[in-house]
Amino acid sequence: METVYIGLAGFGTVGSGLAKILESNSDWIERRLGRQIAIRKVLVRDLNKVRAASPGSEASFTADPAELIDDPDVSIVVELMGGVEAPRRLITAALNAGKHVVTANKHLLAEHGTELFALAAEKGLGLFYEASVAGGIPTIATFREALAGDRISEVVGILNGTANYILSEMTVNGLEFNTALSQAQDLGYAEADPTLDIEGHDTAHKLVVLIRLAFGLDYPLTELPVRGITGVTPQDITYAREFGYRIKLIAEARQVNGRIEAGVFPALVRYTYLLARVGGNYNAIRLTGNAVGPVMLHGQGAGDLPTGSAVLSDIMALIRGPEHPDNTGFRNAPMARAQILPPDQAVCMHYLRATVEDRTGVMASIAQAMADNGVSIAQAVQKGDSENGSVSVVFITHDASAEAMRRVIADIDAMDFTVKSTVHYRIM
Amino acid sequence: METVYIGLAGFGTVGSGLAKILESNSDWIERRLGRQIAIRKVLVRDLNKVRAASPGSEASFTADPAELIDDPDVSIVVELMGGVEAPRRLITAALNAGKHVVTANKHLLAEHGTELFALAAEKGLGLFYEASVAGGIPTIATFREALAGDRISEVVGILNGTANYILSEMTVNGLEFNTALSQAQDLGYAEADPTLDIEGHDTAHKLVVLIRLAFGLDYPLTELPVRGITGVTPQDITYAREFGYRIKLIAEARQVNGRIEAGVFPALVRYTYLLARVGGNYNAIRLTGNAVGPVMLHGQGAGDLPTGSAVLSDIMALIRGPEHPDNTGFRNAPMARAQILPPDQAVCMHYLRATVEDRTGVMASIAQAMADNGVSIAQAVQKGDSENGSVSVVFITHDASAEAMRRVIADIDAMDFTVKSTVHYRIM
Repeated sequence: METVYIGLAGFGTVGSGLAKILESNSDWIERRLGRQIAIRKVLVRDLNKVRAASPGSEASFTADPAELIDDPDVSIVVELMGGVEAPRRLITAALNAGKHVVTANKHLLAEHGTELFALAAEKGLGLFYEASVAGGIPTIATFREALAGDRISEVVGILNGTANYILSEMTVNGLEFNTALSQAQDLGYAEADPTLDIEGHDTAHKLVVLIRLAFGLDYPLTELPVRGITGVTPQDITYAREFGYRIKLIAEARQVNGRIEAGVFPALVRYTYLLARVGGNYNAIRLTGNAVGPVMLHGQGAGDLPTGSAVLSDIMALIRGPEHPDNTGFRNAPMARAQILPPDQAVCMHYLRATVEDRTGVMASIAQAMADNGVSIAQAVQKGDSENGSVSVVFITHDASAEAMRRVIADIDAMDFTVKSTVHYRIM
Repeated sequence: METVYIGLAGFGTVGSGLAKILESNSDWIERRLGRQIAIRKVLVRDLNKVRAASPGSEASFTADPAELIDDPDVSIVVELMGGVEAPRRLITAALNAGKHVVTANKHLLAEHGTELFALAAEKGLGLFYEASVAGGIPTIATFREALAGDRISEVVGILNGTANYILSEMTVNGLEFNTALSQAQDLGYAEADPTLDIEGHDTAHKLVVLIRLAFGLDYPLTELPVRGITGVTPQDITYAREFGYRIKLIAEARQVNGRIEAGVFPALVRYTYLLARVGGNYNAIRLTGNAVGPVMLHGQGAGDLPTGSAVLSDIMALIRGPEHPDNTGFRNAPMARAQILPPDQAVCMHYLRATVEDRTGVMASIAQAMADNGVSIAQAVQKGDSENGSVSVVFITHDASAEAMRRVIADIDAMDFTVKSTVHYRIM
């Protein structure tokens, strides 16, 4: 029985998950491939650290990347280190040494994907990344292969389990943001430094990867509008519920007259939508193709085994062939840069919550400000509970541009009865 | 620019859908493949029939299967004829002539898949079938590739859009079965002869295909317990709703101690489950892998363009290579026959509705019959509205075997106060 050896860079959560699956499912993998898969080398920073999991009997640890790259037995390098610069150097070296690469690193692919895919194409090698978006959900394969013939018009995703867990806890159990965050950290769902997750950057990295796959276009990460969830309050979650919505951290990209409208932002999602029902640390992706129509994929977006499963599917795909993979799902040519729709021109429904003094004429003034900016009101509710003489007034608008809403908010915030900055979310 | 030519057998709904997508997305397909795809020959029964769609400028019609098979330009034969014997002969001839095959024919694959996959393996050819289950939802690719390293423990699906549409209309609009069926026929969702759809056989064909993919086992179609939806009444839908359930036509297969428990049946699904929210003519599949955990896929299960999209993805996969595809997702060896769990031993919660005379002691007698058979009651409600002196008594049980429930029902139906046969559904 032939064995395919992999070199594993990083032995944290996902690396140990992969090792566990390789062990528990080895007979299964053999039935599918007619071959065994074994880990040969494991690259770690600290050789003396005690590890809870074992990479298998044929593996040895090393702290030197060159040992992984230069090992003639290793035909596939699996990068699960985290960070950007070290994995970038490692993957570049692996491709230059003629080895296929599997990575879960969305941050690296969002920042340097174009350059790395070009190198892989030049070398005729696989650079596979199923684990980089939505953990175990078969996302990359769906865009690259299963819906290869579909022209995708829209992708909407809940792509960060930590943020979704926090919002779900705030919604279901009425927690404040900071309490929900601490709870997520206690449960291991959030990192000690949760910035990438809660500020939306992790979601943004994944969205850039998805835009490449869905539209065959390069959308620079630095151009992507990103808003996180740190400002979401139980109050807005409650008001949103009263109107029949849930607040979710949404990644969205769509074609609008040849340009791409994309962004990451907390938004109100109608509770009847399947996306609104994605709970806890789950992820979901809804795409719309011109032939297939809408498709939704739902599953665990993180964790050692779900993400390890995605890494393993890439390894198995590379072992099965083809010889010259199209890693992006398109022929190996440089990808055009997206024509970006200026975020100000994005049109949708909006949720506004103004905090104002409890006196006559307030509603009329705000309604007039909206009318002046061409924004039409769908629903308006003054929330009764006056606190220190101030009240919340909540508006749901009809479709309006982000620019018009920016002007409306500036107008409201400049009014003398306004007590606090107006809160604003998009509605899906 | 190189062109890959396909031979198309059948030019009905899906065949015309495929032709439309090939035309509208041709530049997109070219970006992905670096090649064009064109239809060369179209096999039809009636050469004189006027067609609403065009198969493209390079295509000609024929009524002779040999013209498709013998055309040296045709490298992929796409079978979209329907039926069993004619497509079986065509696919066998195509494989023997060294041509890859794409089919949407679940009926054929359920009955003769083992023999056809063996022939394809012998010839080293692709026999791809993404369109055979759940239309445009990437189902086959998910099992065969994206989750190739996962050991699947359970697959649950809503796989027939017609049946789901009928049940949804009965649930949402309170229609009788026959009214909902007529409406589905008027809308083109149901065939003139809807037997395969409403009696559960179409779902059964798909489930046999899924069992092969998920477990690598051959489950003979003739062994599969199948129950359709013709007996579902608005009354049971209403009672199920009152307990927090929806009635859905479910296909289910799972591993139980090394044996396969599988079947097609209408069942009560808790309304909070995503599966309960699959509406209209949509399909969904929920699978559970030992690494990935639960994954749900949701989308349109039928229609010209969604199904055409799936056919196209197979064609594109075959054009991209590999040389020796494993069509079943396992190495090309004969598949073992499943160890089948006797359906009587399947354990789950159950819904029972007894129709009885409205007199004292009835509830006690039925409860005693359950206790005698070791069945424990979770909820019991007597529905007040006495009709001709008879009332409905509805029970939700705790976990019990199908065999115990069969005995309970026989006991109830033998009681002198019982007016009509007791209605029974499983609960997911």
